[in-house]
Formats: sequence, C-alpha cells, structure tokens
Amino acid sequence: MYIVDLNCDMGESFGAYRMGRDEEILDYITSANIACGFHAGDPSTMRKTVRLALEKNVGIGVHPGLQDLAGFGRRNMDISPQEAYDLVVYQIGALYGFVKSEGGKLQHVKPHGALFNMAAKDAALSEAIAEAIYKVDPELVLFGLAGGELVKAGKKIGLRSASEVFSDRTYQEDGSLTSRREENALIKDHEVAVNQVIRMVKEGKVKSVQGGDVSIKANTICIHGDGPSALDFAKYISKALTEADITIAKIGGFLT
Amino acid sequence: MYIVDLNCDMGESFGAYRMGRDEEILDYITSANIACGFHAGDPSTMRKTVRLALEKNVGIGVHPGLQDLAGFGRRNMDISPQEAYDLVVYQIGALYGFVKSEGGKLQHVKPHGALFNMAAKDAALSEAIAEAIYKVDPELVLFGLAGGELVKAGKKIGLRSASEVFSDRTYQEDGSLTSRREENALIKDHEVAVNQVIRMVKEGKVKSVQGGDVSIKANTICIHGDGPSALDFAKYISKALTEADITIAKIGGFLT
Amino acid sequence: MYIVDLNCDMGESFGAYRMGRDEEILDYITSANIACGFHAGDPSTMRKTVRLALEKNVGIGVHPGLQDLAGFGRRNMDISPQEAYDLVVYQIGALYGFVKSEGGKLQHVKPHGALFNMAAKDAALSEAIAEAIYKVDPELVLFGLAGGELVKAGKKIGLRSASEVFSDRTYQEDGSLTSRREENALIKDHEVAVNQVIRMVKEGKVKSVQGGDVSIKANTICIHGDGPSALDFAKYISKALTEADITIAKIGGFLT
Amino acid sequence: MYIVDLNCDMGESFGAYRMGRDEEILDYITSANIACGFHAGDPSTMRKTVRLALEKNVGIGVHPGLQDLAGFGRRNMDISPQEAYDLVVYQIGALYGFVKSEGGKLQHVKPHGALFNMAAKDAALSEAIAEAIYKVDPELVLFGLAGGELVKAGKKIGLRSASEVFSDRTYQEDGSLTSRREENALIKDHEVAVNQVIRMVKEGKVKSVQGGDVSIKANTICIHGDGPSALDFAKYISKALTEADITIAKIGGFLT
Repeated sequence: MYIVDLNCDMGESFGAYRMGRDEEILDYITSANIACGFHAGDPSTMRKTVRLALEKNVGIGVHPGLQDLAGFGRRNMDISPQEAYDLVVYQIGALYGFVKSEGGKLQHVKPHGALFNMAAKDAALSEAIAEAIYKVDPELVLFGLAGGELVKAGKKIGLRSASEVFSDRTYQEDGSLTSRREENALIKDHEVAVNQVIRMVKEGKVKSVQGGDVSIKANTICIHGDGPSALDFAKYISKALTEADITIAKIGGFLT
Repeated sequence: MYIVDLNCDMGESFGAYRMGRDEEILDYITSANIACGFHAGDPSTMRKTVRLALEKNVGIGVHPGLQDLAGFGRRNMDISPQEAYDLVVYQIGALYGFVKSEGGKLQHVKPHGALFNMAAKDAALSEAIAEAIYKVDPELVLFGLAGGELVKAGKKIGLRSASEVFSDRTYQEDGSLTSRREENALIKDHEVAVNQVIRMVKEGKVKSVQGGDVSIKANTICIHGDGPSALDFAKYISKALTEADITIAKIGGFLT
Repeated sequence: MYIVDLNCDMGESFGAYRMGRDEEILDYITSANIACGFHAGDPSTMRKTVRLALEKNVGIGVHPGLQDLAGFGRRNMDISPQEAYDLVVYQIGALYGFVKSEGGKLQHVKPHGALFNMAAKDAALSEAIAEAIYKVDPELVLFGLAGGELVKAGKKIGLRSASEVFSDRTYQEDGSLTSRREENALIKDHEVAVNQVIRMVKEGKVKSVQGGDVSIKANTICIHGDGPSALDFAKYISKALTEADITIAKIGGFLT
Repeated sequence: MYIVDLNCDMGESFGAYRMGRDEEILDYITSANIACGFHAGDPSTMRKTVRLALEKNVGIGVHPGLQDLAGFGRRNMDISPQEAYDLVVYQIGALYGFVKSEGGKLQHVKPHGALFNMAAKDAALSEAIAEAIYKVDPELVLFGLAGGELVKAGKKIGLRSASEVFSDRTYQEDGSLTSRREENALIKDHEVAVNQVIRMVKEGKVKSVQGGDVSIKANTICIHGDGPSALDFAKYISKALTEADITIAKIGGFLT
C-alpha cells in the first residue's frame, strides 16, 4: 500500500496584497504550510488560514522563512545557526498562538524558500532548525528536502522527519532541486509532473536533468498554491494519485 | 499587609541596537514585560531575555506593541479591534515559543505604549485584546492602566487583571496619565516618585496635576529600564517599598 | 474651455506581490502617483513604473505614504509635523533617484491614503508637507483634497496646488470624502461616477450624501488602478470626459 | 605631499535607538557616510545628520545598504545585480532629498557592510552599483575597497573612484579584509592601527595577517563611529596623520 501527504504553502497574503487561492486548494491537500509574517503572511492572514485549515481538516504546519518580505524569503542570507534557531522558535510560537486560540494543534514545520534550500545543504543550519522545533514541541513533524541535511538533522534529534519531493521541479543527479534560475527548473506539463511524483512514491526514483535515475524517498509532495493553474493542478494531482492507488493522507497520521 | 508587583519593560534591544540594562534591573523587579518584535525586540533578544528572567526567577510577560518599530510603538495608530486581537495573539505566541523551549511559563500580558494607552480609553479595543489573551491562555494575567478600560475588559471575560500604576508619571484628575507631550508628564525626583507609589499602594490614592486626590488601585508598579538612572531607581524603589512594609512579589502569585 | 488632469496611483506592487494594471491604465491617464516603498512599492517597481510613465508621456508624481506596509498606509497614525516633513522629503528624493537616472523629471507630489486624509483636516501637518516639497523643489505641483488644508498650505508657501476630486467616492456636506468605513463611501456605477465628475469640472459643484450641493474645484480627478473594473473605468471616464468637451491634460502644463 | 580623506559611517540611529557619537566625530573627519534607512538610519536621523555635516563642512556621502535592519546590513544576501542597482538608486535619491532641501550637495557613495564586501569580490554586482551611481549623478565619487572590484567598476564607467583602507581591520595576503568572524579581524591598539594607516598612505603597503607585505592604495581611511573609544580614536588618528605630514582633506577636492 502506498501513502503520501500532499502539502501546499498557504497564508502568503500580506496586508492589502492577495496571494494564492487557499480556500479552494485546501480541498485537495492534507497539510498546509502557513507563512508566519517573515517572508509572507501577517497576523490576520494567519488567523484566517488556520480557521480554514481546521474547517477543512487539513494538517497545520508552520512555514518559517527568512526575514525578507521584499524578497519573499527566496534570497539566500548568510545567517548563523543561532539566528536560524531563533527565527524558527519565534515563528512556530506565532502560529501556535492562532492554532491554540482556534482550538487546533500544530502538525508540522517546513522551512520556506531560501531557508529550506540552505538547510538542505548545511548540517549546522539544519541542526539548529531541528533543535528549535524539538525544544518547542518534540511531537512536531519536520519537513525537509528528500535526501537533504534537514531530514538527517531531524531524525538525529528525534523528530519524525518527512522527506519532501516536488511535483513541478526538476532534480539534479545529486538529488537536489534545479535552481529556479535555470530554465529547466520548472515542470510545466501537469502529466509529466504527476508521473514524476507517482514514480517517486511507488519506485523511490526520479530521473535527473542529467538523465540518470536518482533514489528518492517521498513522504510528502509539495504543490504550489499561486499561479493561474494552481487549483487545476491540485485537482489533477489529487485525482491522479488516487487513481494510481496511492492514498493521500495527513503526514501526522502515518509517518513513523 | 501590603503587597505589590514591580514590573519593567525588557528585551527592547533590536539587532545591533542596544537598549536598557536588563540583566541588572532584573535583580530588583518581579515581572518582566518582554518586547516581541513589533515595536522593539527581535527573536535573539527574546531568547536571551527569557533566559535571564528564568535565571532570576522573574515572572515573564508578553509586551505586545503596534507594528511601528520606527516609532517604538508610541504613536497611536487607527487599528481595528480585529487587528489588535490578531497582533496580540501573534505576539503572545511568539514569546510562548521561547518560554516553552526554555522550560518556563508565561505569567502575564501587558500591551505596550500606544496600544496600552489607546486601550485604556477604548472599550472595544480592550475587549479585543482581552479576548485574544483569553483564547490563547485563560490563566494569563492582564496588565492595564488602573481605572482604564483594559482592566474592565479583562475582568469581564474572566482574566485575572492587574491595575498598573506608574512611579514616574503624573496623573490627571480623571485618573489617566499626563501625556508625554506635556512638560509635567514625568516625575524626575526619585523620592517624589516613590512616595507617590507608596501612597497608591497603601491608601489607594494619588494627587493629580490639577491638585485633587484621585482613587487608584495599585497591583503592579511600572518602572523604566532605560535612561541613565534606571538602575539606581530600581534599587531605590525596591528598598523604599520594603522599608515601607510593602511586600514585592510576582503578580501571578497573589492576584486573585 | 474645460481642462482637467486624470491621475491614478501606480507602482503599488511589492516584491512578489502584484497590484494594479499599471501598464494598461497609463494609456488613459495624464499623471501617475508612484508609491515610494513606505505604504507600497519597492525600488524595482519604482524603476519599472517610472520607465513606463516616461514611455507613455505621463506626468510623474511622488506618492509618499505612512510607514505602514501592513496597513497599506491607510491607517491614521499620530505622527508629528516634523515626522511628516521627513517622510515626504525622503520619498520625494527616492523617486527622484529613478526619475533622474531614467532621464525624466518629477511633476507633482500627492500624499497617499491616511497621510492625504489627515493632512486635509490638519493645517500643521499640511504646512509641514508643503514645506518639505517646496524645499526639495519649488517647481513641484502639490495635489490635495479639494477644499482641504493641504491645498491651502501649498498655496501659502508658493507651490502650484491642484484641487483633487474623486470620481468614485461620495462627498459629505462639508466637502470631505465619506469615510471608507461607511457603506455609501464608494460609487460603483460608472455612469454616476462620471456624471459627478463632469459636473464638478464644469459647474464646480457636487451633491453631498446629505443631499445638498457643495462647491468644489476640480483640477485633477483621481481614478483607481486596482479592482476588476479599473481598466474599464479608465477607458470609460477618458471617453466620457472627451465627449463632454473636457480636455484631459497633464497638470504641470496648465495649472497656474 | 601626502593627502588622504578620513571617512566615518554616520546617521546610524534608528527611531528610539541611538548609535554613534556623530556630532563630536564630525569634528575630526572629512567625509561622512550617511545611512539611508535600509540597514540603519531613518528620515529624521538623515535630516539631522545632513545638517550637522553641512555645519561642520564635511563631505556628504550616501551609505546604501542591504534591506536588513535586523542584521544591520552585515549579512550577505544573494541579491541580483539589478536589485543592487535599484537599492542604490533609491538610497542615493533618498539622501539627495535631504541634501537638496538643506542647500547642500552630495559628494560620494560608499556601499555599506555586506553590500560593500560582496561588491569587492563580484564584478557584476560592482558594475551594477557603479552604473546606478553614474546614472543618478556622474559627479559622485565612489568609495570601494582598495584593490577590489568596486573601484575597478567605478573607473570603468567613468566615476572618480576612491580606494578605501581600514585603520582598525587586518588584511589578508590577497588584500581583502579579514572576516569579522575571525578573532584577529580587528586592531584594537590605536598606535598599531594608525601606523598601519600611515604606512598605507606613504608607502602604499600593508602587512597581511599571513606576514607578507601587500600593495595597497589609500585615498580614504575608514574609521568607526560607534564603540566606547571611537571619539578618542578619531582625535588620535587625526593628530597622528597631521604630525606625519599627511594632509587630511575632503575626497571631492583632491581625487582625480
């Protein structure tokens, strides 16, 4: 039996700025990564997004990012492990406030953008992030790039750690994501994207841009919530996975 | 028997900017109001301040402020009650992250600066703030201006609510603080400041700038942590209160 | 002969967040109010917007706002006249950088949102804003609410000062705009909006929500660039004014 | 005859946070690098600092930094050359606003902290910065690390470009500064610091931490304005250079 979690970034609106079609996409995913005001999101958006996720019975995750609203947390910054630790504790706490006041429970933590990417390659940064999560709540699930340092650091400290794969991103032969600066970073064809994911879940393999197969573990699949076809893709992948006999379920319920 | 809490704003440094003599002042107070990154403070400062407060066995409080770092949260902003609710939930949560990860417990919430002053006069704003606190943790103590709307709103929703008085601020005949824009807003003479406080604690009265006595309840006294004589004053008031047979203790331990 | 300027807020995108259909709307307006990074906008957006405005031969204006990105500069803040002065000098300069580097010239300054509204009623604030503009460049045109303090302050210090009217906002009997918090603040019917404007330009009168006529001067009309029908309305009002024998022209070319 | 400029970072206070002893240090330097609100500084501080510099007849420079107030602009960020260009144009303009309104003139531009350090090693970033300056005002002097890419890019585009040396930082054998993360990055002994500088000015050489001499050009010397001994050091170096027959003068007056 195959099982996988479907996660999406949520709550990325800020003040007067709208982003994403959260309410509709929540119908097709099992885990929501909610922005916490550093790279995106704001207190009001966080409250609304937590409420929506609870209504739709979706697992609630903290999506901590670098303090770079202007760059949407996508620009690498040379922060120290201690700074990463502090950013993560702060943002877990901030979302906890809304989850607690709405009667819910946090399920997971997934670092955002540049923090996620830097951590994948940096053991010290990953250990600081894992420690931050563990010290606030050791029951939280940590999401990291499949094969990367974050998953390793999470397991080492004793967190349940989910290997995440991307449906719409291409992979390098070392198992890392192709940089968004490269032309072939994104997979735009929905069928190609979904077939890549099904193979990762069932066979534990992905074809790299260099042509060879790479071993990869897929506990959770990241889909994107913005862009014109986000909702269509969410429906499409949800249906395709089910048809491929893959169960879609909240990570918190099955990851060991 | 007379008993009072002594509180001080803490953790107001930001990045490379230092403010306050937190470590030394913590030796003389019983409750610390820790800034949460909106009007002052940052994640690293919050962690350090929480650790210090735990080491020195001082009650830890959330000090939520307006999102106005440039104005240190001292400029009134026309925010809605819903916005106030969201700001407060967020900031309680953020500090909770550090308190939880350090093995401590939150004691109280004291809104900062303009938020504190606006709330004192605005029932709807106060009710939103009180609800935010109650929904995150109904055990938290709410600090509000003695005689103001915040204390009323806290009691109404079922929070233990502490009436706060200021040692170094003068009072108007309606019990409100004299605006900092007025020349006579501040009491600079330490003896005058302390005698005002002792009378508030023992007699429940304060002389207004207009000359008449005003009834006032004093559960907790605010002292300031910045300025050249902050530490001297902390020592002075601590000694003077003790000599006047007033017990200084954490609010969480005696307020009903 | 009737002549009027048509202005619109522009360059309100921020980082990854898109707002407005600037490029298309620039075809129908004569003056662009460009956000400067305080309430909206960022350096890259400013550069792009300045380039577009130059290409389309639209007058370039500074659109200084309160330092409240989270509130889009729409929440009143209790800033001092000196703070207003400093904010305005800073933001004029920032946009000047892009206009100078692109080979253009600044035409006007229109305070944004809450700063515009507060200034309309506050002579001291208006005088500080007018002085800021005058000291950076006395050739700049100042936009203020028709009948408000800002226009008065501009004239007093020697700036050409344009009386601005709104096509889609209703008016109170004292000539002020109905607060956006009121239900009847906005005029959603395009024909009603345009007829209100034509009457203001030709007769110098507007019907207030209370029912009576109010005298009003209309040098420039504000239209909005966001919302689903913004572009349609821009086309519509441009056509309707022309058909009503009203010339639409840049304010800098005709205001005395 | 030997001649050198003495520059110092200024205007780094932010809101309620004070930094530096600007007023006193301005008596000993010839060029002031004024923060523009991105890594430090705010509009009010900029106005005050520009006034002080004009009163004391010190050359006024723009000190553009990364948008990282929390990190004081000292953390490398992976920005694109286009983003660097836009940040620099914006910040030059912002300071120009105050210089123009106070009746002064801009003399130079010195990127701050991480932007300065990244540019020293990155030709594309340096060319973008140099172009930004050139397009706003080709008369401005560009300050870059002696021997680094910024000075090269400035010369290439046609800007007068000043080679800057540091009195209190040690040098690597490739002419770069020792990272602040290394223990031996700072020279704390005033006499050692000044002798290093005198040798750089007179002989064009500096001893690296590895032990060998490195050739270095010294048009301007950076001293620091914060820290307990900043003022003492400013006096000390000013006196020592004069006694060593080195003229201290504004860069704009002698650099070709």
